[in-house]
Amino acid sequence: MRVALLISYDGTAFSGWQVQPGRRTVQGVLEEAYRRMTGKEARITASGRTDAGVHAEGQVAVFDAAGPIPADRYAPCFNTILPDDVKVLASARVDDAFDVTGDVVRKTYCYRAYHAPAVLPLRARYAVRLQAEPDLSRMRDAAQLLLGEHDFAAFRAVGFTSRTSVRTIYAVRIERESLICGDEYTITVCGSGFLYNMVRIIAGELFAIGCGKQEGITQAFATGKRECLARTMPPDGLTLCRVEYDRLLFGGIESEHGIF
Amino acid sequence: MRVALLISYDGTAFSGWQVQPGRRTVQGVLEEAYRRMTGKEARITASGRTDAGVHAEGQVAVFDAAGPIPADRYAPCFNTILPDDVKVLASARVDDAFDVTGDVVRKTYCYRAYHAPAVLPLRARYAVRLQAEPDLSRMRDAAQLLLGEHDFAAFRAVGFTSRTSVRTIYAVRIERESLICGDEYTITVCGSGFLYNMVRIIAGELFAIGCGKQEGITQAFATGKRECLARTMPPDGLTLCRVEYDRLLFGGIESEHGIF
Repeated sequence: MRVALLISYDGTAFSGWQVQPGRRTVQGVLEEAYRRMTGKEARITASGRTDAGVHAEGQVAVFDAAGPIPADRYAPCFNTILPDDVKVLASARVDDAFDVTGDVVRKTYCYRAYHAPAVLPLRARYAVRLQAEPDLSRMRDAAQLLLGEHDFAAFRAVGFTSRTSVRTIYAVRIERESLICGDEYTITVCGSGFLYNMVRIIAGELFAIGCGKQEGITQAFATGKRECLARTMPPDGLTLCRVEYDRLLFGGIESEHGIF
Repeated sequence: MRVALLISYDGTAFSGWQVQPGRRTVQGVLEEAYRRMTGKEARITASGRTDAGVHAEGQVAVFDAAGPIPADRYAPCFNTILPDDVKVLASARVDDAFDVTGDVVRKTYCYRAYHAPAVLPLRARYAVRLQAEPDLSRMRDAAQLLLGEHDFAAFRAVGFTSRTSVRTIYAVRIERESLICGDEYTITVCGSGFLYNMVRIIAGELFAIGCGKQEGITQAFATGKRECLARTMPPDGLTLCRVEYDRLLFGGIESEHGIF
């Protein structure tokens, strides 16, 4: 029986999703919890790996269950064992043919940053400090250039490849929230899929444009060159918010959450 | 020279504001930073103490400075020494007669809680999990009863006293945010001042009413009895957002932040 899990984690104390010897990873902690729960081994595969420090509101993962536990009971069973920085919000049976990576139709990420006179203790865990105050309207104008289908080859960490670098961006939203001293900015991006570091490169370019850099997106699409774009933002500001498939996996529990 | 500090802290790893032997407290960490910075001792006094686990976006504190550092330079000097869970957002000279506790005209607190099928790793640090889903309109109706000047004697931890228990509540706002699984609720309360545990008791009563408890506020005002009201909520959901005086202390840096 193939079981899908809806998972949230605070990435701060994890060396990313993927199992690595001697490191605390989300996949490692989940697979160890499964072993303790059932006495069996399972490979738990995510919709995509997340880097060290990246958070998730709603990561999706699957595994093939052998034991007698009903699919919807896996969530509470996992949670009695899991630490507080990773929890399973829901579990449900899916088709044996369900491909957690290949069947993704949309993913939504948030990137958070703030401008303030000091590190903000209540924001620093999930947002990155900017050195200057960005101009929101410049950022929003530039974000329009990203919409639609493009070859995002330039929006990828150098040295990484994939079958195709064509992706579709469905929506980008940029919001500002006033803080007692300064402002917090959230960039929300929804797309068909993302290349390695793509959201962090988009966020870096948009914040740089907001802070006065000349727009490099047009040139990046034309040439495919990474150096047209500003530096990659740090991982801690990034949260994987939602992964969508052509059907609802968790009985509608996740359907009411309209990010866009 | 009397210097006021605008301070933010994540209360998770602190045993509250007040210095206690052998404990890590906000006051203790600040006074130690001042010692390392100047080689001198100073008592740093807050607008009010916060309990273990309670956070602050904008606590205000003062001390009497002896050294040659200009008042506005204290913030960056403190921040080079302070850990990331407490930072000084601004510093400014105030009258020698300024009373950081007695001169308060308004304080604003937020209390955050969520209803979800599991502990939420990205919320648990600053919000408390509810066992049931509260009815927002019941909570909002009950919150109206709190507005204005009342004797809040019943809204105080048993065994604590003060000169008077009459306080004025200027505004209460209750908001809901949809999460991928569940909802987060924020109660924002602005008042002339608050008794010990008063915001946590207000939050406990409003959430209990939202979850079906009969309203006990009217009876609590009439009798002054703590037992009319629901249990005190845990400290981790509470954040001191803003402390206001009859003048702006930090050159207007804090004035644009309109909570209400």
